[in-house]
Amino acid sequence: MRASGLDGLLLMSEAEVRYFSGFHTLFWQSPTRPWFVFVPLTGKPVAVIPEIGAELMRTTWLDDIRTWSAPRPDDDGLSLLTELLAPLADARKTIGVMKGHETSLRMPLGDYERLVDGLPGLTIADATGLVRGLRMVKSEREIEKISHICGIGSRTFARVPELAEEGLAIEDLFRAFRRECLAQGADDVPYLVGGADQGGYHDVISPPSSRPLTRGDILMLDTGATWDGYFCDFDRNFAIGSADDASRRAYDVLWRATEAGINAARAGTTCRQLFATMQAVIEELDNQGGDVGRLGHGLGMQLTEWPSHAAFDETVIEENMVLTLEPSLSYGGGRVMVHEENIVVRAHGAELLTERAPRELPVI
Amino acid sequence: MRASGLDGLLLMSEAEVRYFSGFHTLFWQSPTRPWFVFVPLTGKPVAVIPEIGAELMRTTWLDDIRTWSAPRPDDDGLSLLTELLAPLADARKTIGVMKGHETSLRMPLGDYERLVDGLPGLTIADATGLVRGLRMVKSEREIEKISHICGIGSRTFARVPELAEEGLAIEDLFRAFRRECLAQGADDVPYLVGGADQGGYHDVISPPSSRPLTRGDILMLDTGATWDGYFCDFDRNFAIGSADDASRRAYDVLWRATEAGINAARAGTTCRQLFATMQAVIEELDNQGGDVGRLGHGLGMQLTEWPSHAAFDETVIEENMVLTLEPSLSYGGGRVMVHEENIVVRAHGAELLTERAPRELPVI
Repeated sequence: MRASGLDGLLLMSEAEVRYFSGFHTLFWQSPTRPWFVFVPLTGKPVAVIPEIGAELMRTTWLDDIRTWSAPRPDDDGLSLLTELLAPLADARKTIGVMKGHETSLRMPLGDYERLVDGLPGLTIADATGLVRGLRMVKSEREIEKISHICGIGSRTFARVPELAEEGLAIEDLFRAFRRECLAQGADDVPYLVGGADQGGYHDVISPPSSRPLTRGDILMLDTGATWDGYFCDFDRNFAIGSADDASRRAYDVLWRATEAGINAARAGTTCRQLFATMQAVIEELDNQGGDVGRLGHGLGMQLTEWPSHAAFDETVIEENMVLTLEPSLSYGGGRVMVHEENIVVRAHGAELLTERAPRELPVI
Repeated sequence: MRASGLDGLLLMSEAEVRYFSGFHTLFWQSPTRPWFVFVPLTGKPVAVIPEIGAELMRTTWLDDIRTWSAPRPDDDGLSLLTELLAPLADARKTIGVMKGHETSLRMPLGDYERLVDGLPGLTIADATGLVRGLRMVKSEREIEKISHICGIGSRTFARVPELAEEGLAIEDLFRAFRRECLAQGADDVPYLVGGADQGGYHDVISPPSSRPLTRGDILMLDTGATWDGYFCDFDRNFAIGSADDASRRAYDVLWRATEAGINAARAGTTCRQLFATMQAVIEELDNQGGDVGRLGHGLGMQLTEWPSHAAFDETVIEENMVLTLEPSLSYGGGRVMVHEENIVVRAHGAELLTERAPRELPVI
């Protein structure tokens, strides 16, 4: 913070609050109440939270926990925040909030504007770069958690040939996949998308339909499952009954693009270089650049985190970053294919956290 | 919009984008990309979205779908939005965005500030009241979906006596509950919190621990499961082996407070009156007001929606509102108990969507 010219950080999104405090609850799914953690230049963070969270926050390492009876629409934490920040405003200090790429403002915009208007001496800077730099490099305990859920995800995907069969509705396969993933030890399977269609799927973010799996379908499942607050995020492709040549070819290209990415993902490489390495393989089949916008990303407390494997991202890869490698391409008739693995970057190079996808498109 | 003095609505949060377009995907869990729907004063909404969502958006009723290859940190939709809104800015018009209670800004704050700075003629007003008024009253198709998932949740809770037993770790009970709820037909169980402790639990938003269920525990499970994009949100209490008198008494008070709420939840009543009716029963045992901050809320596309059953909320209840009734209280030694049902308000009064909790605290 000192190097960044910041006298404090005001954090309010789930991942940042949890990262600095350890406060972990699904209650964030209710949009009703804002939550705040202020990280001062020296000393422990201060929690400014709804009373309903006080008991859980007292189990964390924080001591200074200030609460109000929320919801209280006319003063949802604003008085408490103003009291906390007024000395900094009076001293014409600067605090950081998350304003940058891949962030949101997790409080009402109107309240934020009122808060800032009430602290005229305070300068608000963007702390995204600072927090991003911390969160991108994982601790060993974070890596253990991600590795654990990647193992659960891998064992679940290994059972898909037993779960999927011709005639099963895709939505029922999704339910079976979620149930299996929980049985394998996941805490939750908040993210599961995919598709299946004759000779290839057309979309990679749809909810499941009631269409039955049919011979000749290419099926893709992409899951973000969680364990102890950390995500895996990877997908697998399967052919139902038989695989067409175009899909086999697409799979082969993506498998090799991923392999190139695994070999290239070393400390000191940039995300831009990693992108270019994978893209060079993809261009054997598709030089249009695709619709996904990048070929992988960071992974941890969120399903997707900084950085992006994309031409715009000059982030230098560091040891203990956890990354997805996610090459994708379009092929005949508007079909699309994705392929994804999760890795941790170590001193000697990338280590797979997921069990590597089969070399050839598996046929169920 | 005309009555509110608005010339358009710029929407960017999952629920609002889905409400006006039908666009439904779990991909929102990735924080990387912003999504926008602009609702003009006349004509169909316009989607301004990442290219990865184009295929799915084309399945909705929208025709005008403008996309960019996202992520693109230096221009994540801003050029497209500016082009769309510039004519309104030039004409010194006013658009609404969600700035009020229970909302967030689901785009980077820095990008929002840049967007507004680049459209100096445009006035930004708060559209929360307008959208809230629409979303609070459900259509019959929405009510059917909520009723369906409430039925699934009720059947799942009915099986808890078979799933829970002394010695089972609470986290394993959570997994079993989620699996059962999926087997009963839920699409997902994104929200599951609760607790169990001797003679009563102390917290209502915690993730599960590895502590085994023990004779004398009071166990509470609170779930938000989904079907076709709509939530149920209710909880159930159980005693393990035997129930202590204080917990039985607390349960009885909450059951009767809920009953009073069901009888009072009629069109024309205010949320404040509904709150007072339930609170009058609760005060037999606890006159401290509790930590939860309200005694229920709206329900639909989100786990919690407007309004709040609280002293501050003068919202007049209308036919076809879907509401939770969620009285809570504190009792001996920092214990807390919650009790919750989901209802739809009809012409003749409240109809339960959940199967009513047993009259007495059930003992497993």
